[in-house]
Amino acid sequence: MRQSELFTKTRKEAPKDEVARNAQLLIRAGYIHKEMAGVYSYLPLGFRVLNKIVNIIREEMNGIGGQELFLTALQDPEIWKKSGRWSEKVVDNWFKTDIKAGDKVGLGFTHEEPIVRLMGNHVHSYRDLPKLAYQFQTKFRNEERAKSGILRTREFLMKDLYSFSKDEKEHNKIYEKTKEAYVRIFNRVGVGERTFLTFASGGSFSKYSHEFQTICDAGEDTIYVDEKKKIAVNKDVLTPEVLKELGVKRDELVEKKAIEVGNIFSQGTRFSEPLGLKFKNEQGKETPVIMGAYGIGPGRLMGTIVELLADKAGLVWPSSVAPFKVHLISLAPENEEVKSAADHLYKKLVTAGVEVLYDDRDARAGEKFTDSDLLGLPIRLVISDKTIKASKVEFKLRAQEKSTLLDEAEVLQKVV
Amino acid sequence: MRQSELFTKTRKEAPKDEVARNAQLLIRAGYIHKEMAGVYSYLPLGFRVLNKIVNIIREEMNGIGGQELFLTALQDPEIWKKSGRWSEKVVDNWFKTDIKAGDKVGLGFTHEEPIVRLMGNHVHSYRDLPKLAYQFQTKFRNEERAKSGILRTREFLMKDLYSFSKDEKEHNKIYEKTKEAYVRIFNRVGVGERTFLTFASGGSFSKYSHEFQTICDAGEDTIYVDEKKKIAVNKDVLTPEVLKELGVKRDELVEKKAIEVGNIFSQGTRFSEPLGLKFKNEQGKETPVIMGAYGIGPGRLMGTIVELLADKAGLVWPSSVAPFKVHLISLAPENEEVKSAADHLYKKLVTAGVEVLYDDRDARAGEKFTDSDLLGLPIRLVISDKTIKASKVEFKLRAQEKSTLLDEAEVLQKVV
Repeated sequence: MRQSELFTKTRKEAPKDEVARNAQLLIRAGYIHKEMAGVYSYLPLGFRVLNKIVNIIREEMNGIGGQELFLTALQDPEIWKKSGRWSEKVVDNWFKTDIKAGDKVGLGFTHEEPIVRLMGNHVHSYRDLPKLAYQFQTKFRNEERAKSGILRTREFLMKDLYSFSKDEKEHNKIYEKTKEAYVRIFNRVGVGERTFLTFASGGSFSKYSHEFQTICDAGEDTIYVDEKKKIAVNKDVLTPEVLKELGVKRDELVEKKAIEVGNIFSQGTRFSEPLGLKFKNEQGKETPVIMGAYGIGPGRLMGTIVELLADKAGLVWPSSVAPFKVHLISLAPENEEVKSAADHLYKKLVTAGVEVLYDDRDARAGEKFTDSDLLGLPIRLVISDKTIKASKVEFKLRAQEKSTLLDEAEVLQKVV
Repeated sequence: MRQSELFTKTRKEAPKDEVARNAQLLIRAGYIHKEMAGVYSYLPLGFRVLNKIVNIIREEMNGIGGQELFLTALQDPEIWKKSGRWSEKVVDNWFKTDIKAGDKVGLGFTHEEPIVRLMGNHVHSYRDLPKLAYQFQTKFRNEERAKSGILRTREFLMKDLYSFSKDEKEHNKIYEKTKEAYVRIFNRVGVGERTFLTFASGGSFSKYSHEFQTICDAGEDTIYVDEKKKIAVNKDVLTPEVLKELGVKRDELVEKKAIEVGNIFSQGTRFSEPLGLKFKNEQGKETPVIMGAYGIGPGRLMGTIVELLADKAGLVWPSSVAPFKVHLISLAPENEEVKSAADHLYKKLVTAGVEVLYDDRDARAGEKFTDSDLLGLPIRLVISDKTIKASKVEFKLRAQEKSTLLDEAEVLQKVV
């Protein structure tokens, strides 16, 4: 895409009321727009990043047999009363609204209740199990405070996968498979090394739930990390018994701030029982379905990548989620020779299927370099009077200081 | 995909409270689920159709230079007060909700106000114009009645494109380009022949707005159609002056029921003025931006396709939006020879990139055929004892009665 056509512009300062570093950088770079506290719109560049993350998650969910659907935001009180989660005393972050000529309805902060009800139309026998269904849907959470940029918002996209199994054994297999898919997701988006499978409190149906926590000073959580074993323990289960069971020693654990980028729960029959999701087992006996729930917030993951990788000059995107792979800059595009060499390379790269943002703007070199660092695309290519004289293109990785001069064939080899 | 793995099942009867034919069929076929009156979830097959429609619209919007973004559902009252649309006396279908420790906020029923505000950060000069931005976002409308299935719902996905121009001339060019893109969209999804550009009332900034109306008995609108000229006139502008201006004669117009599948408006400075979206023109003078708004509801379009094309036996999808192109049915899969021939063809088709739903279920032939008609995939392929003996595959188009026996090479030629 030609940068002269992109409608967003960078800016020097973030809004004064924005305290989170991820949002400050993303707003300055024109990736997001703050609508209200805790409510952010995604502008073209930001939406491209969000979608890359979404597609990586989608591929991994499809890979383990997940079937994608799309539930609604508006929530029928009836099913939430059955599960006991309609009351504000139980769930303190509901948004509710009035439907015309009717009752209050809720805005979904999660989707167990509706998916359990609809599964009742399709699951009747053990032969119908196991099944995995997931969606990317907007969740609404009436948060008391929202000061972490896109790490914690009142409205956000969430991938929620639900599993339906006939027994514990079947459930555990799916749980492990999903855990592995999560590890692949966090590796693919570039936060794998800093992300730890973290043991947290379980509930009535399993001893533990599992969080995926990315070590980061901007995080709201505190975890205790065993770097060698690549696991961590959440504060809430940091007891001698748990440590013994996990085979870790307290004095080998390091306390760290972390961002919860994913979580997986065994829910047992917590929802299938009150909502009547039953099946006939091999013996013909009506049995409640065993469930699991598995969440990742793509927006929070995007914010985590920003917090982890950005430097003083701006954003730094891994190739897998960058809005464009290459930032092609023509210096002095009023110089016909420079312009036509840059146009030529742009077309060549696009034809080869490379995603390129082409800074063809009539702007000073300093402004272009500053913007380029702020936008954070993985590879920067510069064409100028100087590079043309040398019959070269300047090549630089955003994450490294050094630039090199390459000829066109070498550029294509590195980039395509 | 193997049908044995698909979690949805067909059913014989739609829910008793569902009166719309589109929703009855889509629910019976397992494409959608009714959460409440006017609120529908999309199940895997339905979500595939919705996404195909979304992608066709996206391609056409990108093709005219639209830049995709993603605004929020939660709406800041401040900007709606500026435009005069916060009051329920002005907008009677708001959903509003309370934000913790704060004011009421709205749920977006459209998005002019937020997009105009954010454009103010990026548009400063005539050089920044024109720009086109669009999104697919959930709209919330607190409808009094919701009895038309997915044709009119309280929560629905909408594609809304907004154009920003420096003057009327630039605006008119974009308006025409968008009109042409809309014609292509309706052609591509298979309702082009029955869809008419319809003149409707304009407002302060233009004499007319334009609707795209698809002739259909399930429609809520009444239009007057000139089939030869391929235009129509909405009831609200059916005056002698308008007819004269359009060069049509009253007695050549036929009254028809129709579904509004798209609309385009010239908004002039209706929103840019109160919200202060201005730019410096060539003479350095601050000038309000000229806007247009262009909507299509992918869900309503999906419902329209159902209403237009479905027959007594069930859904009938055009290839461009079908969840799968081919329904491959193995009759008597317990017969090893049939099973292995069907498995073989399934793999062959999938490898060739064809989207296939493979009915490998252990079910009676009658049930399989009934389901297949209800699901409505464009091409049905049957493998049975009989076809194997003839070394053939039975080939049938969903929209036609006749089936033929083809050998594998012919099938591949027709399908790939």
